Amino acid sequence: MKVVISDIARKAGVSSGTVSNAINNRKGISEQKRQAILKIAREMGYFDQREIKKTESQKIKFVVMNKQGNVVGDTPFFSELIRGIEMECSALGYELVISHITLAPEEDPIEKIRPELVDGLLLLGTELEKQDLAVFRHLEVPLVILDTIFNSQDFDFVAINNRDSAYEIVEKMIEKGHRDIGIINSTFQINNFRERKQGFIQAIQEHDLIHYEETEALVEPTLEGSYQDMKVYLESLRADQRPLPSAFFAVNDNIAIGAMKAIREVFPDHPLAIVGFDDIPLAEFCNPPLTTVKVDKVYLGRQAVRRLIEKITSEDENHLKMLVATTIVERESIK
Amino acid sequence: MKVVISDIARKAGVSSGTVSNAINNRKGISEQKRQAILKIAREMGYFDQREIKKTESQKIKFVVMNKQGNVVGDTPFFSELIRGIEMECSALGYELVISHITLAPEEDPIEKIRPELVDGLLLLGTELEKQDLAVFRHLEVPLVILDTIFNSQDFDFVAINNRDSAYEIVEKMIEKGHRDIGIINSTFQINNFRERKQGFIQAIQEHDLIHYEETEALVEPTLEGSYQDMKVYLESLRADQRPLPSAFFAVNDNIAIGAMKAIREVFPDHPLAIVGFDDIPLAEFCNPPLTTVKVDKVYLGRQAVRRLIEKITSEDENHLKMLVATTIVERESIK
Repeated sequence: MKVVISDIARKAGVSSGTVSNAINNRKGISEQKRQAILKIAREMGYFDQREIKKTESQKIKFVVMNKQGNVVGDTPFFSELIRGIEMECSALGYELVISHITLAPEEDPIEKIRPELVDGLLLLGTELEKQDLAVFRHLEVPLVILDTIFNSQDFDFVAINNRDSAYEIVEKMIEKGHRDIGIINSTFQINNFRERKQGFIQAIQEHDLIHYEETEALVEPTLEGSYQDMKVYLESLRADQRPLPSAFFAVNDNIAIGAMKAIREVFPDHPLAIVGFDDIPLAEFCNPPLTTVKVDKVYLGRQAVRRLIEKITSEDENHLKMLVATTIVERESIK
Repeated sequence: MKVVISDIARKAGVSSGTVSNAINNRKGISEQKRQAILKIAREMGYFDQREIKKTESQKIKFVVMNKQGNVVGDTPFFSELIRGIEMECSALGYELVISHITLAPEEDPIEKIRPELVDGLLLLGTELEKQDLAVFRHLEVPLVILDTIFNSQDFDFVAINNRDSAYEIVEKMIEKGHRDIGIINSTFQINNFRERKQGFIQAIQEHDLIHYEETEALVEPTLEGSYQDMKVYLESLRADQRPLPSAFFAVNDNIAIGAMKAIREVFPDHPLAIVGFDDIPLAEFCNPPLTTVKVDKVYLGRQAVRRLIEKITSEDENHLKMLVATTIVERESIK
């Protein structure tokens, strides 16, 4: 029978969190206590299971960590990412284990993840914030964080080059003559959206245009939510007799496509000009077809696996931030 | 006898630049003319030499490209970088060719580099600007640019994580109680310095402190130059009765060490607090020993080679930006 952390905790008379701290060499525990707990863990055969694991096939665990329901797991983004991860694991002879975890404030994610049973961890960080990563700082297995990047040098990150992508697509709008470009952002913020906004602002500023923070439209990041919220936004513009921007940058495709419908309804005579981000399948089939940023999600997943296996095999203690380039797909939504 | 581009140019009655454009599939030449030139090149056996090369050992060319004399090549930075590059090439069975090029405005660097004779190019971009890269956009061999990163998704970049490094070392000064932190920057700007300044400003702003652009000290990026220029700067502070910042962030170690001497001379009673960037050997032996950012240059070189070989072997057409993490070395120059 498998020995788990809570077994050790019961025997040692401490919390599972304390055992986890001791095993993963994290702060918040005295050296004396750590040694006592490690001794009990050893006696119970906890580490032997890991030794057995080492001689079996090599394992990578892909952890999908959410904070508020499983938003990420339902999108086409996710399924392609998984495909890239699976392809690369199998090409390089690693077994892939996938684990979905919803982060509750009281729980220790490390205990749910059980990193000690695998050779490396791939963590989907899309919905995480910088402070959520603190618990992963002293893991004893290699870790690569996927789909987000923070200003921290303590981890390996593999993510989309959001900032340059947004910069380039906004620059394209400017090249087409747009001078008054609005941003449609999400009410639910993730780091990818923040980075895209930074790229948007950089493009606006470097072309001597002005972004007024108060003109930002905030919408729910779904087709229906964006449509509804954008309608309210546009009607308030009309009521206040404020001008409609000549073009919009939406932080993702769902938002862009929902907003398109709202713009068409509220300002039917306005020549629609809008771009999105992601290149979801619908982007090609909406009307007008959406100009957007294409993200090679399979490649993103593959690079994350490559980096993780590099860390596993060469015991590389350095940290890298890797940004995967995108391409712009030009369709009819900007002219 | 080797056929070189100027031989083809002579036979075709066009300039060498035009031949280079034709062979490397760059713009500025009609398709008809391109085909005519390629035909002549083929007849002269130009491409056969390349075929021969392919069956020999695989070759990587490391191009050190300067614009104003060979500034980079003399530093310890450079020698460690080369060591990393050599180690990784030899570990992975590639031959390394090193080529120093000084960029003159009229010349085509491609013709000097002759990418068609190697399997991959590693370009040291330390002193280059974004527009200098345009000529490399349509190379037919894989290219990785080292030690600089621009907001472009058309290339693979491997560089130091300058921004987070500067952020972290400035945050450390703030944690030690400094509220009025000045920056000592270089009169000769390169992208690495610009990124470091951005990290400095981000740290200042996120901690609700203020950076006054007009207080930036600008010095020549050498020991002696920094000492002289900093002395002038400090004396003007004194003359104008403006306050001396309580601490300084210098964009590299040479600047920091030169400035230290100037501060000690002009304000001998001031408790010296200064940090640098690079961790050059002198940083440990100056007085007080300098707190600085340690850059693993061997690792930087190795990662660039790994990425290049990945592109060569898997014909990977995607582009990555890779940022190598640094560590802070705490010595006595901040307390």
